[in-house]
Amino acid sequence: MKILVINAGSSSLKYQLFDMENGQVLAKGLCEKIGLTGAITHKRPGKETYEADYPMPTHNEAIALVLKLLTDSEYGVISSVDEISAVGHRFAHGGKLTKSCLLGEEEIKYIESIIPINPLHGPPALKGVAACKALMSNTPHVGVFDTSFYSGFDKKAYMYALPYEWYEKYGVRRYGFHGTSHRFVSAKACEFLGLDYNSTKIVSCHIGSGSSITAVKNGQAVDTSLGFTPQEGLPMGTRCGSIDPSIVPYIIEQTGMSAAEVNDIMNKKSGLLGVSGVSNDARDVWAAAAEGNERAQLAMDLLVHNAKKIIGSYVAEMNGIDVLIFTAGLGENDRKTRELIAENMEFFGIKLDKDANLNGPRGENLVISAPDSKVKVVVIPTDEEYMIASDTYELVK
Amino acid sequence: MKILVINAGSSSLKYQLFDMENGQVLAKGLCEKIGLTGAITHKRPGKETYEADYPMPTHNEAIALVLKLLTDSEYGVISSVDEISAVGHRFAHGGKLTKSCLLGEEEIKYIESIIPINPLHGPPALKGVAACKALMSNTPHVGVFDTSFYSGFDKKAYMYALPYEWYEKYGVRRYGFHGTSHRFVSAKACEFLGLDYNSTKIVSCHIGSGSSITAVKNGQAVDTSLGFTPQEGLPMGTRCGSIDPSIVPYIIEQTGMSAAEVNDIMNKKSGLLGVSGVSNDARDVWAAAAEGNERAQLAMDLLVHNAKKIIGSYVAEMNGIDVLIFTAGLGENDRKTRELIAENMEFFGIKLDKDANLNGPRGENLVISAPDSKVKVVVIPTDEEYMIASDTYELVK
Repeated sequence: MKILVINAGSSSLKYQLFDMENGQVLAKGLCEKIGLTGAITHKRPGKETYEADYPMPTHNEAIALVLKLLTDSEYGVISSVDEISAVGHRFAHGGKLTKSCLLGEEEIKYIESIIPINPLHGPPALKGVAACKALMSNTPHVGVFDTSFYSGFDKKAYMYALPYEWYEKYGVRRYGFHGTSHRFVSAKACEFLGLDYNSTKIVSCHIGSGSSITAVKNGQAVDTSLGFTPQEGLPMGTRCGSIDPSIVPYIIEQTGMSAAEVNDIMNKKSGLLGVSGVSNDARDVWAAAAEGNERAQLAMDLLVHNAKKIIGSYVAEMNGIDVLIFTAGLGENDRKTRELIAENMEFFGIKLDKDANLNGPRGENLVISAPDSKVKVVVIPTDEEYMIASDTYELVK
Repeated sequence: MKILVINAGSSSLKYQLFDMENGQVLAKGLCEKIGLTGAITHKRPGKETYEADYPMPTHNEAIALVLKLLTDSEYGVISSVDEISAVGHRFAHGGKLTKSCLLGEEEIKYIESIIPINPLHGPPALKGVAACKALMSNTPHVGVFDTSFYSGFDKKAYMYALPYEWYEKYGVRRYGFHGTSHRFVSAKACEFLGLDYNSTKIVSCHIGSGSSITAVKNGQAVDTSLGFTPQEGLPMGTRCGSIDPSIVPYIIEQTGMSAAEVNDIMNKKSGLLGVSGVSNDARDVWAAAAEGNERAQLAMDLLVHNAKKIIGSYVAEMNGIDVLIFTAGLGENDRKTRELIAENMEFFGIKLDKDANLNGPRGENLVISAPDSKVKVVVIPTDEEYMIASDTYELVK
């Protein structure tokens, strides 16, 4: 059975076609500059990459091109669109949709209704679904939601100590994000380590340009650092993470900026970029720090410091930790940040193998804790697309 | 040597007169309704309390009355104001004043200059100093600052991942509060337990209507949960504590309220009050929870849950914990909340003695951990006034 996975953003659209018999990726690619000039990069493992500019006024043209390429005699991997048994769509936010599900009219309407709490990711994801449905009307379409991994949270883990009516009337609660990634790596880590997922305490660090840390206890996510929006917890590339919330009204008052302008700065001009003044990319920031840029060093210190604190908070919450996972851009590739986060954590039973951390292979599941470390520390490359394909497969097989 | 301690609020003024030869309180009291009708409660340990209404249009009349009563033939404890060797004034915020100091013109001017970041506590504290100086012009006046305990923080502990210029231009950083209380109880706990303050890792929980948790490592405060304002960390009586900061612009947009109005709700109508809808007083909230009020139960759950998480974050930061302290209104008196925070923390070596916690005497230093608990858990009644007197004494003796 072949499953197409679609991850639609405002001006981009990622796709992967899986063969679920063996979990192999047959083809994958990226449409960019949708609504602008349009361009596509189309890859088939083991074969040359196809790159081209192509007009994409909307997501419709992008999807049409993807399907054309997938069935193309030269660049394709299937002979007909009918070979695609189902399409899995990635959603950052599912609101009350607590499980991956078939996207019928009712589900689409519900997702439209929660756009106010998901203004950035909701509309383009819905456009991706509509474009796919128009061209594959007889194919089942499945929604996979980042938030659904968190649907089993205890109320104390998702509520804020704000007026209760803000929760009832405006939906203000912790939703969490990156759930599909944390779900994948936490299960994969246990499989890799030979541990029982349902009796293991895991802290999973998804650290990239957006970052979150999730606590998984006995197979159930119990807390996560991103909140009502993708803006809580540790500092990110351009996002500030947790701050004293009364700073927001203070800055509005001091500067005369609007609330929306301040929010924009907190989302796009803070984090590594705002502190360092150098870049939102940790590689650039580390390079500047190495040259003596104190603000660059501070930016990385803040990331490490707050990651440690969040890990500690989840160890308290679970009354223990068995596995610490690193994943995503920095988690998989920034060995120095990993070392700084995991060192000086002996009290928790965490003992890093510095050599394995610095010299272990990239792109593979990797143990980076010392043999005598009570807590296993592992790097697990994330694969949200596979998780989406897998959920889709389970629903339609 | 006799030291007068003054803690001036906007409409109230607390005072205590200490005899520093033996640390005894000779007299203490509270002026209330300053600027309104005016009233005083004046106590001398072991003698009857004096209570009276008395016109107090400003802090000047309040101070004048305090000095009159202290030297009164019937209710007084000294024969002349000249017996007061120095006055210690409590300040919530000292900005860059990193130590208790004599309040000269320069210091007063500096404290005036930081009113924008200390709008609630700064002005009344300054009024208290002015009123005292007018009546005791030859007496040394000392300022003791809640923030000064945090002046040794590493930069990563006090900076937010916000644009660096917000720090430079608007002073946005973590200042912390309740420092005088945490300083007192952390030193006192070590004295009580026979531990070396300079080689002990302490987490100090000051839980009252306002709450904060502070990490003290080897005699040095290294982190604290209140931040730029007294609004970060765990939920409080009416304050929300930490939330996703992007909730603030979202609520402004959804409701049309101003930033100041939203800030007011976060400070005065959130926390235990906002969640429970019952009260800002934990006793009332617990009572409602006992009668089955789910929101009341949730409010207390949120306090406990977030206290645990902050404790865990500091254990990570210090890579260990030797002593866990409870102090202030709830910390000293709410045995149930103490139990819930300290239970299920065996991974950290915390093992509560439930009987000692439930039945130990009030108002005394008390060990509430089991004999075999690696971490000592103690209740230490706080005494900020004594700490202020002690600092003042050290500066003028």
